[in-house]
Amino acid sequence: MISNSIIYIVLAASILALAFAFIFYKQMMKQDEGTDLMKKIAAHVRKGAMAYLKQQYKVVIIVFIILAAIFGIMAYFKLQNGIVWFAFLTGGFFSGLAGFFGMKTATYASARTANAARNSLNSGLKVAFRSGAVMGLVVVGLALLDVSVWFLVLNGTGLLEAVGAENDLITITTTMLTFGMGASTQALFARVGGGIYTKAADVGADLVGKTEYNIPEDDPRNPATIADNVGDNVGDVAGMGADLYESYAGSILATMALGASAFATAAVEGMQFKAVLAPMLIAAVGVLLSLIGIFLVRTKENAGMKELLGALSRGTNTAAVLIAAATFGIMYFLFGKETGEYANMWWQTSLSVVVGLLAGVIIGKATEYYTSQSYKPTQKVAESSKTGPATVIISGLGLGMLSTAIPVVTVGVAIILAYLCANGFNIEFTAANLSRGLYGIGIAAVGMLSTLGITLATDAYGPIADNAGGNAEMSGLEPEVRKRTDALDALGNTTAATGKGFAIGSAALTALALLASYVEEIKIALVRIGQDLPNGVEAAKATLVDFMEAYNVNLMNPVVLVGVFIGAMMAFVFCGMTMNAVGRAAQKMVEEVRRQFSTIKGILEGKAEPDYERCVAISTKGAQHEMLVPSILAILVPILTGVILGVPGVLGLLIGGLATGFVLAVFMANSGGAWDNAKKYVEEGNFGGKGSENHKATVVGDTVGDPFKDTSGPSLNILIKLMSMVSIVMAGLTVTCHLL
Amino acid sequence: MISNSIIYIVLAASILALAFAFIFYKQMMKQDEGTDLMKKIAAHVRKGAMAYLKQQYKVVIIVFIILAAIFGIMAYFKLQNGIVWFAFLTGGFFSGLAGFFGMKTATYASARTANAARNSLNSGLKVAFRSGAVMGLVVVGLALLDVSVWFLVLNGTGLLEAVGAENDLITITTTMLTFGMGASTQALFARVGGGIYTKAADVGADLVGKTEYNIPEDDPRNPATIADNVGDNVGDVAGMGADLYESYAGSILATMALGASAFATAAVEGMQFKAVLAPMLIAAVGVLLSLIGIFLVRTKENAGMKELLGALSRGTNTAAVLIAAATFGIMYFLFGKETGEYANMWWQTSLSVVVGLLAGVIIGKATEYYTSQSYKPTQKVAESSKTGPATVIISGLGLGMLSTAIPVVTVGVAIILAYLCANGFNIEFTAANLSRGLYGIGIAAVGMLSTLGITLATDAYGPIADNAGGNAEMSGLEPEVRKRTDALDALGNTTAATGKGFAIGSAALTALALLASYVEEIKIALVRIGQDLPNGVEAAKATLVDFMEAYNVNLMNPVVLVGVFIGAMMAFVFCGMTMNAVGRAAQKMVEEVRRQFSTIKGILEGKAEPDYERCVAISTKGAQHEMLVPSILAILVPILTGVILGVPGVLGLLIGGLATGFVLAVFMANSGGAWDNAKKYVEEGNFGGKGSENHKATVVGDTVGDPFKDTSGPSLNILIKLMSMVSIVMAGLTVTCHLL
Repeated sequence: MISNSIIYIVLAASILALAFAFIFYKQMMKQDEGTDLMKKIAAHVRKGAMAYLKQQYKVVIIVFIILAAIFGIMAYFKLQNGIVWFAFLTGGFFSGLAGFFGMKTATYASARTANAARNSLNSGLKVAFRSGAVMGLVVVGLALLDVSVWFLVLNGTGLLEAVGAENDLITITTTMLTFGMGASTQALFARVGGGIYTKAADVGADLVGKTEYNIPEDDPRNPATIADNVGDNVGDVAGMGADLYESYAGSILATMALGASAFATAAVEGMQFKAVLAPMLIAAVGVLLSLIGIFLVRTKENAGMKELLGALSRGTNTAAVLIAAATFGIMYFLFGKETGEYANMWWQTSLSVVVGLLAGVIIGKATEYYTSQSYKPTQKVAESSKTGPATVIISGLGLGMLSTAIPVVTVGVAIILAYLCANGFNIEFTAANLSRGLYGIGIAAVGMLSTLGITLATDAYGPIADNAGGNAEMSGLEPEVRKRTDALDALGNTTAATGKGFAIGSAALTALALLASYVEEIKIALVRIGQDLPNGVEAAKATLVDFMEAYNVNLMNPVVLVGVFIGAMMAFVFCGMTMNAVGRAAQKMVEEVRRQFSTIKGILEGKAEPDYERCVAISTKGAQHEMLVPSILAILVPILTGVILGVPGVLGLLIGGLATGFVLAVFMANSGGAWDNAKKYVEEGNFGGKGSENHKATVVGDTVGDPFKDTSGPSLNILIKLMSMVSIVMAGLTVTCHLL
Repeated sequence: MISNSIIYIVLAASILALAFAFIFYKQMMKQDEGTDLMKKIAAHVRKGAMAYLKQQYKVVIIVFIILAAIFGIMAYFKLQNGIVWFAFLTGGFFSGLAGFFGMKTATYASARTANAARNSLNSGLKVAFRSGAVMGLVVVGLALLDVSVWFLVLNGTGLLEAVGAENDLITITTTMLTFGMGASTQALFARVGGGIYTKAADVGADLVGKTEYNIPEDDPRNPATIADNVGDNVGDVAGMGADLYESYAGSILATMALGASAFATAAVEGMQFKAVLAPMLIAAVGVLLSLIGIFLVRTKENAGMKELLGALSRGTNTAAVLIAAATFGIMYFLFGKETGEYANMWWQTSLSVVVGLLAGVIIGKATEYYTSQSYKPTQKVAESSKTGPATVIISGLGLGMLSTAIPVVTVGVAIILAYLCANGFNIEFTAANLSRGLYGIGIAAVGMLSTLGITLATDAYGPIADNAGGNAEMSGLEPEVRKRTDALDALGNTTAATGKGFAIGSAALTALALLASYVEEIKIALVRIGQDLPNGVEAAKATLVDFMEAYNVNLMNPVVLVGVFIGAMMAFVFCGMTMNAVGRAAQKMVEEVRRQFSTIKGILEGKAEPDYERCVAISTKGAQHEMLVPSILAILVPILTGVILGVPGVLGLLIGGLATGFVLAVFMANSGGAWDNAKKYVEEGNFGGKGSENHKATVVGDTVGDPFKDTSGPSLNILIKLMSMVSIVMAGLTVTCHLL
């Protein structure tokens, strides 16, 4: 019999991840930070980044205190249980911590990477990649720590009973989902705030520096340069860390909840517990395999780009193949001895994981195809620069819209396959088949993200290399160094495409799994207040299908349809707000940079130092100011929808937001990526090369793409899940009080 | 007792509309066409436009023959009844005819408008507006002709029985929907083909002429000028005519079908027939009121802009208020004597119409707010030109995304109110309440479009004024004339905003109504092949709610969700294709214009004539070539979805396409409109005025906005409905043959 103590494996994996993160951090810190000027610049950037993060956490803490207080009040009125507020806080805390550690490491690593790149490409890769791995391991380590400790506490002690809730696995897992809401809330603020910061600085620096004054990227004469480098850290590192913490934890938690409900009435003893365990174990084993992958990323001295890419791919691919194989082992260990109905469950559920992994790979490849300058689509965007910026924009938008086809169809096929694999290829729509199928969809998402330790490392080392390049430029190192860091950065773009595939794909699957958790939470809320379903079915015994019928969650119900409309609109309005925020903040930055260029004498000759601090302050203030409204909207709209339209309206909202948000996110990410690389393609000497009118046209595209791919697009992934999480936590309110 | 002969009222209204269209056409033709040069230019444009339309109809006829053949084959296998193929052809024929007549009138009217504008603003308005009214009246006249004649034939003769179908009102009305599919197919081709044509020419002309050579709009030295003017006719006139024909007929047909099914089992005799009559009668009375409105549009000589706007608004507002009042009369005539369950039906259903009208007005006002340079949002887009084209694009996109909030919330509220009003404010989700509520939603859409005769006149006169301006410019008339035509054009933009509100809002409501028709058609298909529902309920007696349960069309069914994903994707992919098509066609035009400027000597000095024909040919070929794939995709995807995912997948597809398409359409239309007017705002002398760097930045925005607002955006409205129509016609196939 498998006992609670197996959770200690998960706890051990989490500690292992954190330990290696610490070791890698220490190793990185031992490296030489280079010349005094390099140190000074790094310190500048570090100071700006930390100052920003502190400022952001201050705002976020206030939001968290208010939300925790609301949950406390809800608990008082029996609309939630009494643990939610605290679980919510821990989720937010760990998510923020992951971002903080990742960024701290990155700001120490950039000068060291630049310095190492003075020796060779390979040395630079090693420092940057290991520092990226710190982030990857901190994210998975903290997430598993939070998950395992909470599970041990809730399942092992009578805490839930003490606060008057049930003490079964369903209540435990849905309670734990609220710590996911904490992580999502933190992640949204980090992504939106960081995204606005980095793009305001980037757009501001580029528009005046590159376009108007023809000075290169990261030139120390540009007053917004430091702010731009700070932005890479707070947006692409801290923001991404919090974001992926949320994705990772969210997929595990949602699948645990699905497992608890799918096997709640299983005749075989222990099935429910094992189903809850499975996602945690896959993630724990994934940590080990990620570590193996990380150690595989090494190459001979003087390796070229191709060898470096090979080294990175070897790491991620090995981890992915191993986790696919290991999943069969884990599932056999858990379910291999079952007979009858569950005899084939071990391999069937494993197939769902394989489906998830394959879907992630396909989306990643499609992303690469549409956004890399090695392929036709991006080259065509570059070519359209011959007719000016307008056609660059039109063709980039067209490309992004078209590029949604493969990811959406892939996710669609993956949903159906993961569903069918997990329920034994049974297409009949019964409550049992549905629950097991949804569990399969959830576990496919867990599989996708299980090797996050290494995929995030390949993602996070990109901004480190980028910053190293900035440092090299500003400290006047030999051009060779900048070339090497640029190569590392470009390499990161390719591997990051795969990472993005996994992030977007898993977000869609997880959000789908959260729908079922929402219905489960409605059930718990009904049981808590002692009500039956509207059609008289006893709440405690109701299946998902019963809920659909009782609440008329079908596509003929106008309330559902209005919910879908509002969800679709939310995705657009949220993006509109963040786009405008970047536009406004960037405009302020442009004005400041222009002001400095015209009022500080000798700045363009490099004789006078620009006022970097002021640009940093402008970005910080702009981001703080602008991130609040869209983030709060994401929390308020699901609550209002619930209070006005009730359960069917909320489910409509979530589906509308999920479908439109998913497609919009792919569109924005790919358009942005293609513009970025179309510019690079021209800079490589095509269609007139650097400084030509064509180049200027592609810079316009790149500038528009900045908020697309680094602010609005990635925030959508979080928005989708946060709206689900909010709905789940607020289910008690929706059930007791709604207008329609 | 109300008998079949009342349909002759509808027929009479249709003939009245056509008669007045003919009178207005003759009046216009009596006007002087101006100087010889004016006549020559108009002839040029007319020739190009007619040549294009002929070319387009050739392609469309082939598509229609293929589709009609498929329907014939389906009828042979009892997957459809034997009238569908012919009804489909008539819908397409009349839709094309409406576009043809409208465009013929427009191409004769432009020089006459320019000539009249030499006298006064008011004379110009009169010619342009009356010519626009020809289009409005032809559209409503032909639509009502088709509807009333088909209804007389199907209801009065045994035609349906002769082809082996039932001869009840449900079968009659759903069969008539297939003539809607003909109209939608024609409209999509017209909108997409015309949209690509006009924007390729416009973008090409602007990019080289305005941006590179600094020559004004419509300058005869620009080789793409004639093509640009032809484009206004084939896109904004013929395309819009076919589009609104489809909207108008679609809303009436869908509501008739809803009425037939909602009251199929009514205990009161004649209820069903009267419910089918109601939308036709509202439309027929709307024709009369539109005529009254059209005659109200007159103002004193030497009237200023404000008076002219007042005159136009007086016409449309009077018609709208009168139709609201008349609806109560019509409903009282039909249902005023009912007792019991239906005692309040007359005023309750009338309220649904009022809700629809109000929603249209609110959306129109919101459109005006977000896209007119009189308000802050567009002014801010203009202001962002201070930091270059990139920020113009970012702020325009942001504005468009934000602007989706009011229309979506308005439509959401309207859906729920129209639903509740029509079913007696009964929120309980029963089959009877649902059917009557959906009927209310449909009739709200009919109400919105009932005064199309005049609203379309205010829409269609814009491009006529635009072309008149082109004619004035090219024939070298006094600048005063151009100023007057520009004023007329600007005036048209404001009133067109209201028109757009009605078009978009009604599309959303009609598409929603078509969902119910789809389920109805599934029922007919099941009865035809003698099958029960999957859960054993007898098909003939099954309600909408039974269908939802039998096919598991709920939000937990992964097949539904995958359908929603694909629907959302379709909206984006379709826009991506049309955007890219414009980009490609425009690029060819740019290259041709540049070639002519550099190879034809003396062209810029006005000494040599450019080769207009070649530019016309390039646009024609580009549009023909590019319109096929997206249009065929719109037909194929619903069929494939049905064959693979079955009924729940199709319903998911339709909802996903509707929600995302609706929001995306509003976004694109408003971004495009705002960019257009931001440019005009700068041209009016703000932020540096014409010729400044800021102006150039806004021209980039305007160019990007062109395919947004005139190609992709408006095509989405048709796409949404066409996908529903295709699904309805293919229901028989979906039911008998599907994978999942």
